[in-house]
Amino acid sequence: MRYALKFAYDGTAFDGYARQPDHTTIEGAIIHTMKKEGIVKDIEGNFYPASRTDKGVSALGNVLVIETDVDERGIIPALNSDLKDIVFYGMAKVDEDFKPRYAYQRWYRYFMLNKGGYDADMLSRISDTFLGEHEFKHFSKTDKKMDKTKLAIDEISIHEENGFIIFDLKARRFLWQMIRRLVSTILSVYDGKLELEKIVSALEGNDEKLAIYPVPPEGLILMDIDHRLEYDYTKYPIDLFDKGIEKALTKAMVLSELNNGSEG
Amino acid sequence: MRYALKFAYDGTAFDGYARQPDHTTIEGAIIHTMKKEGIVKDIEGNFYPASRTDKGVSALGNVLVIETDVDERGIIPALNSDLKDIVFYGMAKVDEDFKPRYAYQRWYRYFMLNKGGYDADMLSRISDTFLGEHEFKHFSKTDKKMDKTKLAIDEISIHEENGFIIFDLKARRFLWQMIRRLVSTILSVYDGKLELEKIVSALEGNDEKLAIYPVPPEGLILMDIDHRLEYDYTKYPIDLFDKGIEKALTKAMVLSELNNGSEG
Repeated sequence: MRYALKFAYDGTAFDGYARQPDHTTIEGAIIHTMKKEGIVKDIEGNFYPASRTDKGVSALGNVLVIETDVDERGIIPALNSDLKDIVFYGMAKVDEDFKPRYAYQRWYRYFMLNKGGYDADMLSRISDTFLGEHEFKHFSKTDKKMDKTKLAIDEISIHEENGFIIFDLKARRFLWQMIRRLVSTILSVYDGKLELEKIVSALEGNDEKLAIYPVPPEGLILMDIDHRLEYDYTKYPIDLFDKGIEKALTKAMVLSELNNGSEG
Repeated sequence: MRYALKFAYDGTAFDGYARQPDHTTIEGAIIHTMKKEGIVKDIEGNFYPASRTDKGVSALGNVLVIETDVDERGIIPALNSDLKDIVFYGMAKVDEDFKPRYAYQRWYRYFMLNKGGYDADMLSRISDTFLGEHEFKHFSKTDKKMDKTKLAIDEISIHEENGFIIFDLKARRFLWQMIRRLVSTILSVYDGKLELEKIVSALEGNDEKLAIYPVPPEGLILMDIDHRLEYDYTKYPIDLFDKGIEKALTKAMVLSELNNGSEG
């Protein structure tokens, strides 16, 4: 039988997503456990990722598909008993030729500490420029052919919460580093470092010299991938990342204390 | 000439304090820079640490002493131009036989996120048990002879701030892991997991079976070491650790989002 599995992970706990020898990667850890637990013995033809996130990027709702003949009730418990910083919590039976690369929609969220005093409404107005179908080759790190870099963004919404600017972006697919480069572009336009006219021209496919760097990956979460599947959800362990939150907040507090410096 | 240098560092950015081959340590980084900048060529007899903090522990006011014949005005700028996550900001001329191990007082601060809802005043009353001279061998990871494990704590104060319980401890010297084990002991007594009578007995030198584990190192800061020296202070870069704070807060926010989970 073939199943889609939904899972979350702390991307900062790994050296990246895709399998690599001598690296602790998300895919590597999952495949190791799949084999160890006898869920998928031979990966070839029985294991399909939906989205390989960049190094440092986290996910709440990434998806992968497996072909297996073990009892479906044992799959999620077996995976979760062995994995650290990754949790599986949803499963859907799928057709035997289903592959998860193609999706109806992907939803990403980016968190940025608002120390620059950005106005979310103003950022939002700038971001409207990117809505709909455009040529995005200038806004990604890609070597794909031109026809693959044309795509449509369905939604961009930006709001402020708890001192963070939160960017939500939805599209069928995104190019490599595209979200982090779009966020960076929106900020650069706001800061007056990039002209909106040049952005519009680049989106029309014209060659423009734009210096666009991606914002750091640690603030990015793949929130969900919509394959129009009906998932069975298991209880999500809402305190799973408590220890990490505690550590991060303590680190922020300690560094703030160091920042206060000393007058002797 | 011999100088005492005061410096701060983010302990979480290093593999520990003391020099070790193939590890990025605080002392290793400082010695590398001292040699590279020609400040201290031969470490032997010309370089003395005051406190070697544990792996993960940070410092605002650690001290080391060097013997050098370079122009004193160039020392701090040269060190800071080359070091990352470490900053030097104070210098005092000292006698030629001065060694920094012995100090009048050391001040440590421990930050603990108060998710347990601890009452700072109650913790403070428990901590009074440790004030004054006692036998502390049960409250450290030490193999020292008994006569070296007797010492006096001058001050313990505990207060709550920004959702954190903050422990301040002052003494001439502390034993290995002693502060982290004292904090842990105070919490265990509060939680009713350790009897105060047993603690008192252990402090009198009686052999007691106490299961005391150190709290995690990341919340600990060596705030200052008092050698009764008159330091010349250079401008402390108050935004030095901004990037780290931003990263830590972003991580906490991202993990909180993952903790919220999904209802599908």
